[in-house]
This record gives sequence, structure tokens and C-alpha cells, in this order.
Amino acid sequence: MPAKAEIPENTTAPAALDASLNAERMPVETRILKLDLPPEGFRLVSGRTLKSLDVAYETYGILNAAKSNAVMICSPLTTDAHAAGYNASYEKAKERIGWWDDMIGPGKAIDTNRYFVIASNMLGGCKGTTGPCSVNPETGKPYGSAFPKISVEDMVAVQRLLSLQLGIDVLEAVVGGSMGGMQALQWSTSFPDKVRKCICIAAAACLSAQALGFEIIGRKVIVNDSGFHGGDFYQHGTIPERGLAYARMIGHLTYLSALSMHEKFGRNRKEDWDEKRFETGFEVESYLNHQGDQFVKRFDANSYLHITWAMDHFDLVARYGSLDKAFAPSQAEFLLVALSSDWLFFPEQTRELGRVLLNQKKIVSVVELDSPYGHDAFLLEVANLSQVITGFLEKPAFDNGSGGGPGNGSAGDRQGGPRPAKGTDTSWKPRGKSFGASRDLEALASLIERGSHILDIGCGDGVLIDRMYKSHGVTGIGIDIALPHVVECLRKNVPVLQSDADRGLSLISDGAFDYAVLNRTLQEVKKPQLVLNEMLRVARKGIVAFPNFAFVGNRLSLLTTGVMPVSEALPYNWHDTPNIHLFSLDDFRLLCAREGIRIEKVLYLGESMISRLMLGLGRPNLGSEFVIASIARES
Amino acid sequence: MPAKAEIPENTTAPAALDASLNAERMPVETRILKLDLPPEGFRLVSGRTLKSLDVAYETYGILNAAKSNAVMICSPLTTDAHAAGYNASYEKAKERIGWWDDMIGPGKAIDTNRYFVIASNMLGGCKGTTGPCSVNPETGKPYGSAFPKISVEDMVAVQRLLSLQLGIDVLEAVVGGSMGGMQALQWSTSFPDKVRKCICIAAAACLSAQALGFEIIGRKVIVNDSGFHGGDFYQHGTIPERGLAYARMIGHLTYLSALSMHEKFGRNRKEDWDEKRFETGFEVESYLNHQGDQFVKRFDANSYLHITWAMDHFDLVARYGSLDKAFAPSQAEFLLVALSSDWLFFPEQTRELGRVLLNQKKIVSVVELDSPYGHDAFLLEVANLSQVITGFLEKPAFDNGSGGGPGNGSAGDRQGGPRPAKGTDTSWKPRGKSFGASRDLEALASLIERGSHILDIGCGDGVLIDRMYKSHGVTGIGIDIALPHVVECLRKNVPVLQSDADRGLSLISDGAFDYAVLNRTLQEVKKPQLVLNEMLRVARKGIVAFPNFAFVGNRLSLLTTGVMPVSEALPYNWHDTPNIHLFSLDDFRLLCAREGIRIEKVLYLGESMISRLMLGLGRPNLGSEFVIASIARES
Repeated sequence: MPAKAEIPENTTAPAALDASLNAERMPVETRILKLDLPPEGFRLVSGRTLKSLDVAYETYGILNAAKSNAVMICSPLTTDAHAAGYNASYEKAKERIGWWDDMIGPGKAIDTNRYFVIASNMLGGCKGTTGPCSVNPETGKPYGSAFPKISVEDMVAVQRLLSLQLGIDVLEAVVGGSMGGMQALQWSTSFPDKVRKCICIAAAACLSAQALGFEIIGRKVIVNDSGFHGGDFYQHGTIPERGLAYARMIGHLTYLSALSMHEKFGRNRKEDWDEKRFETGFEVESYLNHQGDQFVKRFDANSYLHITWAMDHFDLVARYGSLDKAFAPSQAEFLLVALSSDWLFFPEQTRELGRVLLNQKKIVSVVELDSPYGHDAFLLEVANLSQVITGFLEKPAFDNGSGGGPGNGSAGDRQGGPRPAKGTDTSWKPRGKSFGASRDLEALASLIERGSHILDIGCGDGVLIDRMYKSHGVTGIGIDIALPHVVECLRKNVPVLQSDADRGLSLISDGAFDYAVLNRTLQEVKKPQLVLNEMLRVARKGIVAFPNFAFVGNRLSLLTTGVMPVSEALPYNWHDTPNIHLFSLDDFRLLCAREGIRIEKVLYLGESMISRLMLGLGRPNLGSEFVIASIARES
Repeated sequence: MPAKAEIPENTTAPAALDASLNAERMPVETRILKLDLPPEGFRLVSGRTLKSLDVAYETYGILNAAKSNAVMICSPLTTDAHAAGYNASYEKAKERIGWWDDMIGPGKAIDTNRYFVIASNMLGGCKGTTGPCSVNPETGKPYGSAFPKISVEDMVAVQRLLSLQLGIDVLEAVVGGSMGGMQALQWSTSFPDKVRKCICIAAAACLSAQALGFEIIGRKVIVNDSGFHGGDFYQHGTIPERGLAYARMIGHLTYLSALSMHEKFGRNRKEDWDEKRFETGFEVESYLNHQGDQFVKRFDANSYLHITWAMDHFDLVARYGSLDKAFAPSQAEFLLVALSSDWLFFPEQTRELGRVLLNQKKIVSVVELDSPYGHDAFLLEVANLSQVITGFLEKPAFDNGSGGGPGNGSAGDRQGGPRPAKGTDTSWKPRGKSFGASRDLEALASLIERGSHILDIGCGDGVLIDRMYKSHGVTGIGIDIALPHVVECLRKNVPVLQSDADRGLSLISDGAFDYAVLNRTLQEVKKPQLVLNEMLRVARKGIVAFPNFAFVGNRLSLLTTGVMPVSEALPYNWHDTPNIHLFSLDDFRLLCAREGIRIEKVLYLGESMISRLMLGLGRPNLGSEFVIASIARES
């Protein structure tokens, strides 16, 4: 009879812990769980079966009574179940700390004071979960070449069995980077109603041709090693040592960026090397040798082959016919994070995934973190990543029952209300959005029908959608380029695309929104004409709010002073203004006429005496300090 | 007695050829030249010697009587002497066409109607030039492991001997891409007075750590192959077949971009593959297999090891102490070309090299070609590259005697005067530089001392430096981002940096120029304040010419019409203007005052009645339609 899962109790004692404590204060251990399987065993996607299945796993934090706070960590290529905390069973001090301990722990982004976190060694691995070096129950010898090909889908199916056996049906979140991100996507596809939040970092719906190329060469080098013996090297007492080391070296290079390698090694050299073997003595060579040697000691060559093979064949389009079909049933809310200098999974792949999910009206945020450190930045440079994930996870849980419009969920659900933004760059201030913001928002809101779905281009901290959600029941998505804005949006439960206006709009399909809003943004974009037309492609109507350069105050200021006007509505000096295309209400009218855009309604705003006077005289282009116009495509 | 070089006569018949003819019309052959060596042999940088040395080479075009029209083609990693034309001796039809035939030939960028072009197989190669598979005269067997380590410097020394033996002392140009670019740089360093023009494409003064990493792994895979036998596989009747193939595959991936691979292969699959060996059937795998197999057939593993080893150790800083010392003696004029998506030799490396040469007051142009096709674009996508090289080579020859200030050389030298720009994008028009350009230039010129050295930021087609060179004897360099502008500059003999203002200025050291000019550019840059300060860092004085937004015509236009003014000086609509920071003369004065910049002299330009009236009344901020100011740092 298979062992029942043991949920470790009190592995953390939240009251005694805070964010500043290091991993050594969170003692953890890896457990092995034999999965309950039907008599025929675990059926793989390929149709083949595994008679028995062990899973190595760790858990952190405490499962709540409702069993609704579980987070599944999906692991990248070569890590094990020890994701966080301090595991004394490892020989080397460094390995005792979990591989993603920077992200997981009390007070950290994946907060073990709040969540019950599960990490496991993946199917096909060599760290306790059944893999090619495990004993084949049918032969009593290691599987070796008899181990069947596996898929990411199989890995996730095993994680699902683990989760069930731990007593958890629905996961609050699945989180993974790199190949772990692929698993996270697969979770939302395989088990569409069992995942509330899906966080996919530095990953994609499939590997690029370039990444495939490096993987393929790595495997050839292993298979061709004289120690490989067709995969049955265990019996021969050999390992494909050099092959595995070289494959690791190739892979390792793809995890780093050119800049990070330059900073780390440059062309530094050590003193002695074997010139006969064409060694160079460059530090990068010593480093690669070290990486290779260490890897050979800790990893099984067959596991490497099977797991990379599974990664290479992960392809949601090939499996489901299209990304649309793959994600259609999913009820998860998505956070997709790309890393700017990642060239293994490059940001365009993440944007493409975002485009699909947006078009399906999923709740999705797409973030592109600026990092010079390549793919491995998701492991190494976690400050910004932590902010983003914290913002996303701190939101109220998505309400599965109510169906899936973005921005959905009741404000009353929010757990704990506004919190200080932990780790947020406090130097950020919402510049240029402060002028009469409340009054403007009210005026702007009056042009939008209740319950609409809106796109806020240049959304800042997401205040418009947040307030209009509360006051008018609108749902929506914001677009903004600044990370602090993005984090604020996430914290407010406003889905957000981190992008400039031009590129952000390219992610959105025709007619996806009722309204597109440009609140004090049109004068900041590089191509106002393009953006105006784009907003009326993606939305039925547009709302454009802008400072009127022809406001009489500006005209008189220029006429009399001879310098560029600086005012409440135009608060910048000419040389450091984000307002790179100044224009007047009449300029705007002329452009709309030329582009076949109908101006349906205009609100003229101005507080000053002269403004009110001119508006009273029916001279809006003179009187309006600030204008809000509702526009639509001429029919 | 060593054979004398035979210069093939009439390998091309210029009168009968034109640019549209293909390579089959230029029959060529590869010859082998035994180099004249002193009795002790050819001494390598390492101190070791080679007793005898053969060089395989081809030539195209006719050497003129003065022997002053020779161009040396420096070849990349694995090519041979057959760079251009049709060589019937090759078995495969494809190989009969030279590897850079798109660039070299009658009417092409390296024009064999004009130049006598030499290409050779590099030292250490396996295509006729002495290398590790050549017979060691001391043993009568192939060198194998006895072949000494070689360097790029040795390769260039061999090319120098070849050139001398062909009767040529001074080369009109050396041209090379990738490792050939390294050789071109080495030429200008090893033989500083023997190279008039140095064209270095997609190369650098050393390999990056990332590129080193891939090279290093490739060599390990070869050396570890069971067929390698320590390099003496010739005697064993083996070759390190798989090792060499895998090394080639790794290298090949670094020559392509992710985008080009995606376009070429995507995730397409063929029907059958050997799953047991973990093959995938992806087209990228078939392609890599093919590349590997073909390479093993045509290339020697020891040559690959030695040549990549030489490339990895090419490092001008390590060899000469600094890039400054390396290039100080060189009298060459430089053209450095980077490729935007090249990640083997990335553009920042080219800019760094440009920075050094600029600081040494060399004549240097730095071009960054926009290409999605990665490193190999220098072989595959030659349209833009041809324009740039044609522009650079069509210039009058640099006058070695007169000493090296940029823009140097007499206009009277120009060969044939202005020509129609062959292959230039004719859709380009010099927008926004047309307003009273001649008159403005004259006014602007009046502020610049004769014989000065100037930097023209946003130089357009280089007309300012070109004219002021003729009229005022100034020398100078332009900065411009648009390729058609860059090509025009090169054609005018105006050295140019292809860059935006901000990044371009970062290449230039303090006080490198007498004047920095911003002619109708300040209103177009993203950070006017930064650029103003930068121009006074790199130059003693600045000249800023700009449209005055406070010109009374503009003010009245805005006051009366309520739309943004469009005039001769401001010829754009608000929404598609490059003028993203409008400002007035008084705005400019205020900014200068704040930044500690002294305005030394101002010229007020305006043709209209009202302009002349206001200027007459002493109201320049009202009257000037256009302003030219001379500025300097407050002392």
C-alpha cells in the first residue's frame, strides 16, 4: 500500500520569523512520496506507463484549513526539490540553501507566512523523483535506455498527483522560471480550473529554433561519448563524463548574457594551462571546466537527455492545435515576466504569449524586467522580480465562479487592504499625472459607460481603472513602461502591460475594448497619429485627455514672455519635458478630421478667470487649459 | 630557388564587363606561391619557425603601373583563397563561385575594374597554404601535433610576404569581416605605413568572453574525440569526425541570429528521426547535421583548432599594452562596420574601437548596419554593406605624407568628382535641412575659425564639413543616424559616426574638437540639456543653429489661428515632426545661463518683413525666425 503524504507541520514558525532572516532559520527536509497509482501504473502522454512513481518534495509554510493557500513551485532544468530554506542533509554548505531561497521564505515574494509552498524534483530527474537512473521495478536494474520519453505535460501530471496526495485540489498559484515557466503554463492548460494564478518567468510556449539548436548539440555530444553505451552506462561502470560536461558548458553559456560574461571574466587568464590540448588559460575556460565537472558529479546524463528532450518538445501549439485552444479553458490569472537580456527565451516570445491571452480576454499582466544578466537573472537578480510577484500575489484571489473579465473580482475581497509597497522604489513619484487628477478623472469617467471594458494607455499607477472599477464597474487593462507604475497597478489588481504605447497596442486585437483612454499621454508618444489610429482599432471609442497648447494663457505667455509656457497643465521646462508633441485643441480637431476620426464630445477644462471667460464666450480653443475628447472612427 | 610570383594578367576584361554580370563571367584560378624565406625559415611570433611556406591565393583585376591599386581581402575563419569569380576547378557548382563574390567583382563594392584584389588562404589553413595537414619538410609526414601555434599577426605577416612577392609594397586597402576584420586591424598595426585604408567588418580588437566560451567548448569537443589521437590522426587513418562536426555546429549557431533561425526553421519537423539517440527531427537538427557533415568533408580538424586558437588569442591590448599603443603608428584611414544583430562580435565592441581611434585623431568612420541576420550578414546581406564600402573606397586616397587630421586630403585629389550614388536608397531626401541652407551655412561658417577641427552633430549628408573644408580649410567628423546620410558623408570624404547624438558623443574624448556644431539638431534630440553640455565637453566652442519658436510669426500664428505654427523654419505638422523640443531664443538663453554656458555671439536670421522690422527694433526673440549662436563654457 502506497505511503500517504505527510504534510510537515510547523516547518516555519511565522511569528518568530521576518523577512530579514536567512535560510538557515528555516530548516527544511526533502521527503519522498510514493504516488498512489492505478494498477496499470502512471500513463504517460506517449502511451507508455511507469509502474511506480516516487516524488521527492519539500514544503514550506502551513496549509490553511480551507487548503486554499498552496503555491506550487515548478523547477527549472537541473534543480531539485530543495527550493528554499536550510536543508542540513546536503554535504556542501552552499547546497544546503535552497536554489530559489531569495524568492521563497517568510516575508519574501513567495511568502511562507502566507502560503503553503510545494517544491518537487521533476519526473525524469535524478534527485529522488523517478527517472532513468531509478531502479526499474520490472528488472531490478536502473532504467537506463529503457526509460520512456517523457513530456512537460507528464511532469505536471505528476505534480498534480503530488498536490492531490497532499490534500490540495486547487492551487492558489503555480510559479516557475525557464523550464519551470513551461510547467506553469502547462498547469493552466492541463488543469484549467485548478490554478488560480499562473506566474511564468523567462519562458515561452515553446523553445526558439536557436535555443533548440544548442540543446540538440548538447545531446549529441553526450550520446556520442564513448562512456554512454546507448544509455546503459550504469551497468558498464562508466559515465559519459566529458559529453555531459560539454553539454552543460554549452547550456551554461546560453543562461548568461554577453555583458555578464564580460563583467565576470573579460579576458583574464590564469598562469598555466595545457596548450597541447588547445586549452587557453582564459578564466572563462576554467569557469566552464568547473561548471562541467561539478555538473557531472551531481547530475545523471540520462536525466539531462530526457529532461532537455521534454523541454525541446514542449510546444503548446503542436499539442493543442493553437495557443488559443490551449488556453481557452483556463480560469487562471496570468503574470508573464520576460527578462530584457534573456536570449534563451527572448522577450518577444513572452509578448506573443501575452497577445494570445489578451485576445482571449484572460486576466494577464506582461512585465519585461530590465536586466543585463541574461536568462539566469530570474535566479540571480530577484529584487525587481520580487516586487512584481509580490504585487501580483498580494492581490485578492481571482474569483473562479464569476467568469473571467479582466479586473474582475470584488474590492471587498482584498486581503488586508492597501499595504506599504515593500521594496518598491520610493523615489518614484507619479509625475505629470497630478494636475487636478481627481477632477479630471471625474470628468473623464463621465464619458465612459458603466460596466465597459477599457484600455488605459499610459496608465501610470492604475488609478483610473481602479477608481472606475469601484465607481462605474468598469474592467480594464493598463499599459505603462515604468516598473514602479507596473508594480502599483499589480498591487491595485489592475492588469498591466509593461510597454510603450506603440508596442503595447500591437499586442491587442481589433475591437478588444469598449474604450481606449489616452490620459495626458498623446503629447508624450513618439507617433501620435499612429497611436490615435491604433486606439480606434483596438477599441470602439477613444477618450483623449490633453493639455491645450493654444490655451490663451499659453499663447499670451509665449507672446509676452517669449519663452515656452510652463503652467499647471504643462509643468515642465522645454528641455526636459516628456511632452514631445505639443498641440492645441484645434490641432487635434484637424488631425482627427484628416484621419477620419469623429469627435463625439469634448469637455473643456480650465479653472482660471481667463479660462472661464473664454469658455463663457464660446472660445474653447482659447479657454481650455485641458481638454477631454471622446472620439470614434467615422462610420 | 623559390618560385617567383606570377601576376595573372587579364583575368578580367573590364571593358566587356559590368556590374550585372555574374561570377561565371569572371574566370579565376587559385595559385600556390612558395614564399621566399630566409634560410632559417619563417619566424612566428611565438619564436618557433616554419622551414617553408606555401600560400594559396587568387587575384582579380589588374595591378596598375604605379602598383597603387591593390586591395587585400582578409578571410574569415574557414574560407579559402577563392573569394570571388568563377573557379572551374571546384567539384561542386556552388563552390565554384567565390565566397564573397557578392562584394568583389567588376562594378561591385570592391570593384575589380578599379582595384587589383588579392585573396589568400590563411596560414594554418588546409586549402593550399601551409597548415597542420601540410607535409612537414623535416619529417616528410603531415605536421599534425608538431605544427606550432600561430597567431593572427603571423597570418598577416604571411599576407605581407605574399603582397611583396607580388611586387606590391603599399596596399590601397585591407578589407575583412569577422576574423578577417581582425587581420585587417592587425595589418594597420603590424604595417602602419603600408595600408591606406582599413575596412574592418563585424570584428573587434579581441573576442568577447561569451564568444571565447563557445570557441573553447568547440575545441574541447574535437580534442576529446576518440579519432583525434593528440592531433596525429593522419597516421591513424582517422579523423575526429563527430568532434569536428559538433564544433562546427556550435560555431554555426553563433553566426546566426535568433530571428534568422526562427525564420529559417521555426519548429518545423521532418518525419523520421532516431529517437533512441535523442534526435528530434526538427529541421534545425537536420540543418546542423548537414552543416557538420559538410564541414568534416572540407575542413581539417587541426586547422580548425589552430585558427580558432589564433582568433581567441588575438588581443591588441594584450599584445601592445593598449589599443592606443597598437594604433598610434598607423597611417590608415579606418572604416569600422558593425552589424546590429551580431552577437558574436557585438556593436559595442566596434564602437569601443572607434572611440580609441577617434581619440587618436585618426580618420575613422563607424557604421552600424541594421540587419536581422546576425554575424553572417556580412556574407549574406551585402546591399547596405556595399553602399558603405563603395562610398568609403570611392574617396580620394588618403595622403600619407600630410599627417593624419580627419578630413585631410586635397579636394583636387578626388577621383572623378561626384558620381551618382550607385545603389543608394534614392527615396531619401534631406528633409528639414533645406530651409535657406546655403545662406545659413554661410552665416554659420562665419562663426568658425579657419582651419578648425569640427564635430557636426546631426550632420545630414555632410555638406557643412565638405563646404567648410573647401572654403575654410576645416577638418571634421559628422554624426548622423540615417544610413543614406552616412553613405553621402563617406562619398564626400567626410568621416562619419552612425549614431544618435547622445550615444555618438559618448565616443568622443574631452576637448577633441575646436567646434561642435548642432545645425537644426537641438530641437530633435531627446535630451537637449545633456547634448549641450556634452558638446562643450568634446569641443572648445559650440555652434547651435535652431528655429526660434518665439519668432513673432510663430507667436501670432498660434495666437490667431490656435494651431501649431508651420513655417519655412518649422516645416512639419505637430504630429509627425522630428522637432520634439520646441524652444525660443530666450528659452535657449535661460538654459545656457543655468548650465553655466556663455553665449558669445548670436546671429539673428529672418527674411520676412515682420522679421526685419522686429530685428530693426532690436527685438531679436520676436524677429528671429532662425538663430545661430556661438557658445562656450563659462570660464
